[in-house]
Amino acid sequence: MAAPKPGLDYLAPVDSEFRVAFDGSFSIASAPTVPPKSAPDDKACKGRLKDTIDALDDHQRVLYAQDRHAILCIFQALDAAGKDSTIRAVMSGLNPAGFQVYSFKQPSREELDHDFLWRTTTRLPERGRIGVFNRSYYEEVLVVRVHPEYLDAQRLPEPRRPEKIWPQRFESIRNHEQHLALSGTVILKFWLNVSKDEQRRRFLDRIDKQKKQWKFSDSDVEEREYWDDYMAAYEECLNETSRPWAPWFAIPADSKPFMRASVADILERTFASMGLRYPELTPEQEKGLASARKRLSKES
Amino acid sequence: MAAPKPGLDYLAPVDSEFRVAFDGSFSIASAPTVPPKSAPDDKACKGRLKDTIDALDDHQRVLYAQDRHAILCIFQALDAAGKDSTIRAVMSGLNPAGFQVYSFKQPSREELDHDFLWRTTTRLPERGRIGVFNRSYYEEVLVVRVHPEYLDAQRLPEPRRPEKIWPQRFESIRNHEQHLALSGTVILKFWLNVSKDEQRRRFLDRIDKQKKQWKFSDSDVEEREYWDDYMAAYEECLNETSRPWAPWFAIPADSKPFMRASVADILERTFASMGLRYPELTPEQEKGLASARKRLSKES
Repeated sequence: MAAPKPGLDYLAPVDSEFRVAFDGSFSIASAPTVPPKSAPDDKACKGRLKDTIDALDDHQRVLYAQDRHAILCIFQALDAAGKDSTIRAVMSGLNPAGFQVYSFKQPSREELDHDFLWRTTTRLPERGRIGVFNRSYYEEVLVVRVHPEYLDAQRLPEPRRPEKIWPQRFESIRNHEQHLALSGTVILKFWLNVSKDEQRRRFLDRIDKQKKQWKFSDSDVEEREYWDDYMAAYEECLNETSRPWAPWFAIPADSKPFMRASVADILERTFASMGLRYPELTPEQEKGLASARKRLSKES
Repeated sequence: MAAPKPGLDYLAPVDSEFRVAFDGSFSIASAPTVPPKSAPDDKACKGRLKDTIDALDDHQRVLYAQDRHAILCIFQALDAAGKDSTIRAVMSGLNPAGFQVYSFKQPSREELDHDFLWRTTTRLPERGRIGVFNRSYYEEVLVVRVHPEYLDAQRLPEPRRPEKIWPQRFESIRNHEQHLALSGTVILKFWLNVSKDEQRRRFLDRIDKQKKQWKFSDSDVEEREYWDDYMAAYEECLNETSRPWAPWFAIPADSKPFMRASVADILERTFASMGLRYPELTPEQEKGLASARKRLSKES
């Protein structure tokens, strides 16, 4: 494990068998898409998720009251891995005033006219809040890497050097996350690791069920053709950008109950590790409260 | 001079006797506040400024048409050095649709709830445009350094380590500017270097002239007490953040005509060095133009 960067040692990443190593040794071939043998069954996972959400709700209140840290959760995955449903399942128990979810689709013309970190930066969570990115600036080293023709619309300086662009983007991302961490943002990144077989099953399910048909588009099947390219891009991306102050977690995504419980568990344990507490009152503030209590009591 | 960073070598900073060295050797004690002996007189400076603005106007049209680079001009200075009037003098000849000026005052509550680069990031210029920052994120290592009590409002992670915070901020700024440069933003930073005597004269002028009184506040005189602290903060800041892809220029500010002509000159020569050109038409586009010409001609 890489030594914590000076100034960032206040935050130790939580342990997890799914945490992506910080030394570049992560291999997708060894990353499971199914829960480990020891995992609880679906029903038990759902029970755990419920308990964890209750704990998250408590943590969030303190996060908001303390107003010193933001939490940024980034979700990346191939289609049908379960990003939307995991975000819904994990966040739906929380106070909506304390978090914000942004889904990043194709960039607008205005967004393309800025650097590739600009559009997500404008949506970063404030202190005291949880921000959830459904896709993110990581698309710039994933889908854009698999389809480098998308770079044309970005109008980068000429001459463009493809062999340099990905290492430069990784460096920009690492620097960006280091800066955010230094200012108090706790960053968690989840890659929902679905198998090619399970994706096929979920696509067929979308095609067959009327309520799910809107979620399917022909291009989803076309993207499957690039499966190996995506895996190579994900492997390098996760190795280049998993750091103690912004760790990646490669969550097995073939079982939705296990995936959701795992994401919630990592988020909950991160909260617990932060030592959040309600602000302590100064003697002056306590005096103010006492005086207010007195005045209010007299009113009756 | 530091070697250009790989990927950033497309942009060589223009030469100038006022450019702050990239090797940390800049000394405020040796930086002039008055024009050099060889400088043209005020009238000649005004004539030059006019010519330069005409050239800038031409450059700006190509910048907009090519739509590949943005230009970011940052102005920092103590009060009464001439930031506002220099921005007005240099930019007023240009097409207002092609540039945007932001003056950053005290941060809002929402801005304080984000990292210190957030509020300026949301105002960065798009490709094809000139963005002017009147004050900027550099305030975070200048006024906040001279008055570290301002940090309280920023609610940074505890424990806060003052000895680490300034080097970390310099690193964040260097990384931020490197990222912007890689995506095509050309960065120029001007420190308007006014002498303590000249500042006193300009303050007295503001106090005495009715039309200028609104620009004066009591706190301006109070800040003068911190003159030496400011000079120390500027010297370290300029040394830590002057880089070939984001150079600082320390412009003598005791003579306004010379200062304005110098800023415009550096901006103009930077434009000229960028090799901007109108987009070349593809054979298809030329065919389209020919066909449009034909149809329009027939209408008469």
